[in-house]
Amino acid sequence: MSKIDKVVLAYSGGLDTSVIVRWLQDTYGCEVVTFTADIGQGEEVEPARAKAQALGVKEIYIDDLREEFVRDFVFPMFRANTIYEGEYLLGTSIARPLIAKRLIEIANETGADAISHGATGKGNDQVRFELGAYALKPGIQVIAPWREWDLTSREKLMQYCEQHNIPVDFSNKKKKSPYSMDANLLHISYEGGVLEEPWAEAEEDMWRWSVSPETAPDKPTYITLQFEKGDPVAIDGERMSPATLLETLNKLGGANGVGRLDIVENRYVGMKSRGCYETPGGTILMKAHRAIESITLDREVAHLKDELMPRYAKLIYNGYWWSPERRMLQAAIDESQAVVNGEVRLKLYKGSVSAVGRRSADSLFDERIATFEDDAGAYNQKDAEGFIKLNALRLRIAAGKGRDLI
Amino acid sequence: MSKIDKVVLAYSGGLDTSVIVRWLQDTYGCEVVTFTADIGQGEEVEPARAKAQALGVKEIYIDDLREEFVRDFVFPMFRANTIYEGEYLLGTSIARPLIAKRLIEIANETGADAISHGATGKGNDQVRFELGAYALKPGIQVIAPWREWDLTSREKLMQYCEQHNIPVDFSNKKKKSPYSMDANLLHISYEGGVLEEPWAEAEEDMWRWSVSPETAPDKPTYITLQFEKGDPVAIDGERMSPATLLETLNKLGGANGVGRLDIVENRYVGMKSRGCYETPGGTILMKAHRAIESITLDREVAHLKDELMPRYAKLIYNGYWWSPERRMLQAAIDESQAVVNGEVRLKLYKGSVSAVGRRSADSLFDERIATFEDDAGAYNQKDAEGFIKLNALRLRIAAGKGRDLI
Amino acid sequence: MSKIDKVVLAYSGGLDTSVIVRWLQDTYGCEVVTFTADIGQGEEVEPARAKAQALGVKEIYIDDLREEFVRDFVFPMFRANTIYEGEYLLGTSIARPLIAKRLIEIANETGADAISHGATGKGNDQVRFELGAYALKPGIQVIAPWREWDLTSREKLMQYCEQHNIPVDFSNKKKKSPYSMDANLLHISYEGGVLEEPWAEAEEDMWRWSVSPETAPDKPTYITLQFEKGDPVAIDGERMSPATLLETLNKLGGANGVGRLDIVENRYVGMKSRGCYETPGGTILMKAHRAIESITLDREVAHLKDELMPRYAKLIYNGYWWSPERRMLQAAIDESQAVVNGEVRLKLYKGSVSAVGRRSADSLFDERIATFEDDAGAYNQKDAEGFIKLNALRLRIAAGKGRDLI
Amino acid sequence: MSKIDKVVLAYSGGLDTSVIVRWLQDTYGCEVVTFTADIGQGEEVEPARAKAQALGVKEIYIDDLREEFVRDFVFPMFRANTIYEGEYLLGTSIARPLIAKRLIEIANETGADAISHGATGKGNDQVRFELGAYALKPGIQVIAPWREWDLTSREKLMQYCEQHNIPVDFSNKKKKSPYSMDANLLHISYEGGVLEEPWAEAEEDMWRWSVSPETAPDKPTYITLQFEKGDPVAIDGERMSPATLLETLNKLGGANGVGRLDIVENRYVGMKSRGCYETPGGTILMKAHRAIESITLDREVAHLKDELMPRYAKLIYNGYWWSPERRMLQAAIDESQAVVNGEVRLKLYKGSVSAVGRRSADSLFDERIATFEDDAGAYNQKDAEGFIKLNALRLRIAAGKGRDLI
Repeated sequence: MSKIDKVVLAYSGGLDTSVIVRWLQDTYGCEVVTFTADIGQGEEVEPARAKAQALGVKEIYIDDLREEFVRDFVFPMFRANTIYEGEYLLGTSIARPLIAKRLIEIANETGADAISHGATGKGNDQVRFELGAYALKPGIQVIAPWREWDLTSREKLMQYCEQHNIPVDFSNKKKKSPYSMDANLLHISYEGGVLEEPWAEAEEDMWRWSVSPETAPDKPTYITLQFEKGDPVAIDGERMSPATLLETLNKLGGANGVGRLDIVENRYVGMKSRGCYETPGGTILMKAHRAIESITLDREVAHLKDELMPRYAKLIYNGYWWSPERRMLQAAIDESQAVVNGEVRLKLYKGSVSAVGRRSADSLFDERIATFEDDAGAYNQKDAEGFIKLNALRLRIAAGKGRDLI
Repeated sequence: MSKIDKVVLAYSGGLDTSVIVRWLQDTYGCEVVTFTADIGQGEEVEPARAKAQALGVKEIYIDDLREEFVRDFVFPMFRANTIYEGEYLLGTSIARPLIAKRLIEIANETGADAISHGATGKGNDQVRFELGAYALKPGIQVIAPWREWDLTSREKLMQYCEQHNIPVDFSNKKKKSPYSMDANLLHISYEGGVLEEPWAEAEEDMWRWSVSPETAPDKPTYITLQFEKGDPVAIDGERMSPATLLETLNKLGGANGVGRLDIVENRYVGMKSRGCYETPGGTILMKAHRAIESITLDREVAHLKDELMPRYAKLIYNGYWWSPERRMLQAAIDESQAVVNGEVRLKLYKGSVSAVGRRSADSLFDERIATFEDDAGAYNQKDAEGFIKLNALRLRIAAGKGRDLI
Repeated sequence: MSKIDKVVLAYSGGLDTSVIVRWLQDTYGCEVVTFTADIGQGEEVEPARAKAQALGVKEIYIDDLREEFVRDFVFPMFRANTIYEGEYLLGTSIARPLIAKRLIEIANETGADAISHGATGKGNDQVRFELGAYALKPGIQVIAPWREWDLTSREKLMQYCEQHNIPVDFSNKKKKSPYSMDANLLHISYEGGVLEEPWAEAEEDMWRWSVSPETAPDKPTYITLQFEKGDPVAIDGERMSPATLLETLNKLGGANGVGRLDIVENRYVGMKSRGCYETPGGTILMKAHRAIESITLDREVAHLKDELMPRYAKLIYNGYWWSPERRMLQAAIDESQAVVNGEVRLKLYKGSVSAVGRRSADSLFDERIATFEDDAGAYNQKDAEGFIKLNALRLRIAAGKGRDLI
Repeated sequence: MSKIDKVVLAYSGGLDTSVIVRWLQDTYGCEVVTFTADIGQGEEVEPARAKAQALGVKEIYIDDLREEFVRDFVFPMFRANTIYEGEYLLGTSIARPLIAKRLIEIANETGADAISHGATGKGNDQVRFELGAYALKPGIQVIAPWREWDLTSREKLMQYCEQHNIPVDFSNKKKKSPYSMDANLLHISYEGGVLEEPWAEAEEDMWRWSVSPETAPDKPTYITLQFEKGDPVAIDGERMSPATLLETLNKLGGANGVGRLDIVENRYVGMKSRGCYETPGGTILMKAHRAIESITLDREVAHLKDELMPRYAKLIYNGYWWSPERRMLQAAIDESQAVVNGEVRLKLYKGSVSAVGRRSADSLFDERIATFEDDAGAYNQKDAEGFIKLNALRLRIAAGKGRDLI
């Protein structure tokens, strides 16, 4: 066991990470610095201060990171229309690099030699935290209590609390849910409990952010989303900060039952895992971003983005946000977005979101050429013959030499 | 102008292709063979016989291709979760190679030296028909009247009918729609009319195959879809032929408002085009296929499929079904599907489709390992440390040498 | 035929393009502006002035584009280690976008409404010239005489000269070669003649830029090439301008028999074509660039570059330098090159080039970790176990469920 | 430490693995089964029998795997023109899955519950052995002594020999080299020693399989290589078994100084490593395979192969031969090779190999079309105009709307 003097802990104020504070103090004889961030999880972060103080913590960081989270992580990711395994909008994955960055910044400020977190040894989050930490501060030490200690059940945790005088009301109310949950401005996730049987349908009362499509309003809600350089900047003409905009989309989506997802995904550590997600604002944003790109992006740029996307998504899912390959892909993606400006009109209705209109000063849609009516020579139909003939040439030569394709 | 003795025409029985029959006879002095196929467009094909006879056609082919269409074209494409530009399920694109193949087979049977079709010089369909034809019979000649004649408006067409005694009731009722439409068992599409303005919302009465989400039933419909080797084979336990199964999914989806899409897409010939699509069964099938793959496919296979998919989709959209590169990709895709067996339970409700359960004898979901509870040693959490450390090594070395990632 | 008032012609001063001057004047009744560029083809460009004057041309452009060519086209391309179809270094392809750009700039300066070139209708160069021209000035008209006129043999061309008083000594000496050749600072190419039979070996006296390996010196030549941000800047410590550097590498390579290539390639227009190339400097540069990247690039960045490269190469080969997708890829490539600094030591010997040493202040090679000797704890071998175990987990789960891989 | 009854060891007969036999017996109290394979490393394998017997081993496997190695591993890999990081022909990587497979087969035959190998914890080989083993027998245990024991220097190893009566002449003569070497029918590799400094040139006397280009014959050697379905089957008309053919190519290449390589590569475990390789036959085969593909493969198939190759190479390098994603890619690659038949004529000369001729009954090279002479209408040059116009359309529309590409 390495000598640790001071460790920065990602601290939620809940039972688990409160136990970790004490366990770190006892096990490593080190000072603990707590770091609690508001990334839009929908819970007060200020109460964490008193709890940390009660545990003897002297250096306590409580940050509101909501704007930075949306502006520098969520929006850049949405520029790529990023979806993991065809379905998942990466709500948990995209929050981790920001936490990792702050942990390291605080370690630098406080002179800590280690960081710690409450993620288990089975999940992706440990990987995301630690890859980020190592990439930003290569000499940092990492303590992952769930991989080290023997408090492997809730009973043992409670016992530990009793033995070490950790008030049990530290127990996060959220944890009374039968599910393991994670929330931030982009989404809320559910794992565990009955979800561990992939055939079992999620119970209706699990979902927290959205009404069921059944109970959503009988009339559709229409909104107009405005984009600048690939990022949304206004709803129905009202400019908003990134966090406010995403929060507003979450409310609009949630009220219309938009953004629920139930999948089995492949974790980086090698296992399959069932997860349910609510991403109301993100689901709307994805649809809208594709729609504004559909009229402003060049075809080949759009296709190149589509081919690169799965790789970019995998990289974020696996925890490589802080990597040179992510920067390289981001450079390409961002290069494409200068022209992604304009408005998209959307219809939200009982769980679905549709793009019903799109317009832009940067539109490449050319009505004169696309029209089914007389185009006054804008397009010469005879060009198509040569186009087809030469595209077919290699196939004709092959067929002429007896190659059979059926 | 080459000497043409006999031409096989893709004949719908509608006004346009009836004009083409006469125009081919007059312009090329050649015999016309008509070919009319039922690919599930929802209209009688038999009436085309009398119309062709009335135009003096002697060799008339009328085929029911529905099973072949779904079995050999739609299903293989869905094995790849194929989507063009993030949205479009390729309903029109996938029907064209089958038509091209039959045109060539009939040309071979009847000794024709050319084929002809009613697609315009602005669209993708001309490319798809002709690339297929050239690939399967390199010496074939192609006549594309819309690229050659001067009947560039409806008025001129009607005039031509009058001059050449073509009964105007040949006019397809469908054409009274203000939209240019195309339908087959996979979808119905709408282009033109008010859709030429991308900001204008499609009118509710345009949609033909699905009820609006607003008027869909207030109670969800649950179905179970069974897969074998990546293809659906039964609904709620009842085995069905491919065409019957897709038709049944279309009804189920349509009744629940599922499968509407409104997009601007990039055509192969270089322009952007607005299209609206209804693909009720296909939308359900896509969701279900991803869900059954989610528990049966290896992670890296799934990711490889996702990375190859945009390219495969583009290739089908552009008309290269009959190409060696499509065969090469299909070989990889099909190799992956042997294990894609099992059942998916789906919820259809007011425009949305969700996978709520999935199970399979070939499932790779390992509850013992994935569990949040005690796993009895199935997974050693300590392994994660080495996994992360070595995955981080290159990043740590770089950071240690001063590379800055922020 | 459109009304053309003035046309800018890419003019070599040789027979073919001299005939084109007259043919354009006669056929279109338009004024011809000639543009002759020195891109390192190894021939005087100044004599083109008198020839153009003799043909009545009033606006004559003669530019030395060598530095721009190497700096803005060749070097950016080499940053990607660009090779078409595994072999071809794109010597011809990369010169075309520069010519296209100058043609359009001159059209803008002179108020010309068209451009023209001497490329045939079978090759790639027509595509490259014209795609570039259309991308930079969408309303430009293009005249491609070889696709229009009937001077389809050398005899007819000579006849035309006689009829129109074009001095036959305009005939480019290069053209006395039995091969169709093209040269610039990056390479010289040979097509046609006996090469049209892919089984026939190229004759030794065809090659012009390199000695045969057989006649190359018996002692190797060693050089050191220095890179900054991915571009070569000095040879053996002597800083040189881009064009001077490439010229020097050409001499060094040519003297050692380096850079000959004999391939069959796939043209964009659909046919296969035999080509022989000499690219002495480029061959050295490719080897050296890979070597300097091998110690300075992150692994995943290097692999991403390798995966994107074939697509980038194809895009340049096909003529899409002036496209948004090329810019998007270039942004990613250039992002990766900031750290590609350092020196490579190379051995040139009788046709081969080897990297024998590489060093850099930005090296990521970590001798302490890589060593076979005691590493004093720099690397913990036990980490490998967890790394392997979790990477194997998905395979073990699958095998445990009976999946058979043999 | 798990209970191990019997372990199968990959045994070379050299010092290191002889120590491992004893160490396994002592440390685990288990029976050791040795497995020694001839994969063309150029050393007798039979002597390993007596050495193993002397160490008390009862079950001794000695296999000649040369034909299987080349037929089922090397040739399938070369069908993809596989190169790792632009240079490395994967000579070591491709031998590992075969060894892994045999270890598992022998474990099954002998009822062993573990396998063991002599690879270190820093390299790729441990990963390749173990991933293969886990994929083929998920319950197998793996003992990697170099990751466990404290015999971390040659001195300690020698001491251990003395203490345990292991005859020092077990010491492999090869090991007297200052380099760490590995050899099989595809290549011989060198690492360590002076090579740990990437700036230092490899010494001439390091190389074992090839003469230096300087001492190679002054006259070129010409050979003709015949391919069937992508695999070489004959040299100069003489059919040979896979192993014999590769061995013959090795001799031909080695005699002409062909196939030396000096690179810095990126290991899967995260570090950069300098390696020198001699792959004489493989270098020839790569050149020849590309040449026969150049006339027989469709363009788009060839490009798709080129784009997939880096990924396939990485997968083999990283040890995922026995994986479903490798099978998926192999299915695509193999699908493409049915037409890869014919002959390539090659020139070997002082370190370089050139393809100078290629021919095939399956050639797609169409001399009638490709010719610079009159093609009698085989190709209509006017088709190129429409081809270019429509390929340019998206660029023209964009430029017309003010998009600037310079």
